[in-house]
Amino acid sequence: MAATLIDGRAVARKVRDQVAADVAAFTAETGVTPGLATLLVGDDAASAVYVANKRRACVEAGIADLHRHLPADVSQDEVVAQLQELNADPQVSGILLQLPVPKHLDSNLLIGLISPDKDVDGLTAVSAGRLVQGVPGLRPCTPSGVIELLDHHEVPLEGAEAVVVGRSELVGKPVAQLLLQRHATVTICHSRTRDLNAVARRADVLIAAVGVPRLIGADAVKPGATVIDVGINRTDAGLVGDVDFDAVREVAGLITPVPGGVGPMTIALLLRNTLTAARLQRGV
Amino acid sequence: MAATLIDGRAVARKVRDQVAADVAAFTAETGVTPGLATLLVGDDAASAVYVANKRRACVEAGIADLHRHLPADVSQDEVVAQLQELNADPQVSGILLQLPVPKHLDSNLLIGLISPDKDVDGLTAVSAGRLVQGVPGLRPCTPSGVIELLDHHEVPLEGAEAVVVGRSELVGKPVAQLLLQRHATVTICHSRTRDLNAVARRADVLIAAVGVPRLIGADAVKPGATVIDVGINRTDAGLVGDVDFDAVREVAGLITPVPGGVGPMTIALLLRNTLTAARLQRGV
Repeated sequence: MAATLIDGRAVARKVRDQVAADVAAFTAETGVTPGLATLLVGDDAASAVYVANKRRACVEAGIADLHRHLPADVSQDEVVAQLQELNADPQVSGILLQLPVPKHLDSNLLIGLISPDKDVDGLTAVSAGRLVQGVPGLRPCTPSGVIELLDHHEVPLEGAEAVVVGRSELVGKPVAQLLLQRHATVTICHSRTRDLNAVARRADVLIAAVGVPRLIGADAVKPGATVIDVGINRTDAGLVGDVDFDAVREVAGLITPVPGGVGPMTIALLLRNTLTAARLQRGV
Repeated sequence: MAATLIDGRAVARKVRDQVAADVAAFTAETGVTPGLATLLVGDDAASAVYVANKRRACVEAGIADLHRHLPADVSQDEVVAQLQELNADPQVSGILLQLPVPKHLDSNLLIGLISPDKDVDGLTAVSAGRLVQGVPGLRPCTPSGVIELLDHHEVPLEGAEAVVVGRSELVGKPVAQLLLQRHATVTICHSRTRDLNAVARRADVLIAAVGVPRLIGADAVKPGATVIDVGINRTDAGLVGDVDFDAVREVAGLITPVPGGVGPMTIALLLRNTLTAARLQRGV
């Protein structure tokens, strides 16, 4: 029997509608409109599309679009100055530095300058530490989106065996922390894992976030498991995930497609983070 | 056949001798003597003993002992002021706020004020984030001591199945991160884990850090596994670990006793962290 599909577009729509309602209530209550400063450096075509999508989503949710576009040859000092200005600006609730930045800029240094309370991508060391320590803060968007999908489908996490394949700062490590907070027994696998299939097959909830097209086959999935595919790989066959969807859907109980699974959640959670950031800055 | 014992006292001695030699070389090269500020609030007898041990170890390693003792009824503002003074003082390489502090003080707030580059206990959100992100910083002492013991015995970590029982900020979570950095496949278990014994039995390297006397029995250990017991529980039968030592030593390949296993490593790594902090402050 084929697995039930998780409709990321529908869940993302629901989250975005809720954020829009919450933003309206927040603005009515405080007189403050949450604002997202997207900072785009240079003319990378893909980045321009991503940023345009984020800006459009902000406006739709009632969040002020505070975009800045800097030339590709901007100096590091100038980007630093811009970030410091955004940190100090009370109109700016969240700051998103679109990655990658041109090679002459030190992206780690720049991200580290973003005020943790405005770090809507959850990429600073402080945000990562707050997540691990379970204290209030901004969590990375895609991992939060994964949890949102699981919750939408009421997938039991407490006591479940969760296996995360991939240990990136952006997805693997934070999603493991979020699953641990929800009281799953969490295993993190990666390229050095011996017998990945055997380890993955233990999972009640399997998260693939490794960036290898169709790495996870039917042999890696326990019958009835929930499979979340965070991979977005461009191949000759088009956009494919880290999961061999056609094979795995025959084994899994619940599965995300690519595209239309985790992907749409990222912007939805970015909007929610911007509202959370606005609240953090008011201490509420 | 009984397991080989890991002699934590001997390994700690070796680390402390190495730190002393490195401190001497650092001081000769830079003219700077690393200094540790231990901050003790109130008159808890156990805390007084711990701090005295740390101070003695500093002096032995050539680290300046910059102790401060505050009365039990000190105001939060006064402790804040002391921490800010220590943060600003170039003589102070490391700051250790001895826990627990009296109940009227907010220990999380106080720890959060310690400069991350002087945070020799590795307890601030920034230190936790730096650990997760794998960037230079100060790692918690006990988890680093665990890795040191494993390395001393040349326990293979790359590709090994490591299981951590316990998810505290102080030990479980950071030791999981350190094992992940060493390319182990890492599972974190806790009180909500279903069938803890079955999960623990997968481990090539089993770390018990849960604070439950003798929780880990022979049934939870794969024959030949390395078992590291971080637990120190005071019971009617004296000091016992989280591992049922007498039973598990018949199954394990390598095992730490309690006391005399992980315990002595903590101070040794505190000394090393103080030197690391002195280097961080000089940007070397």
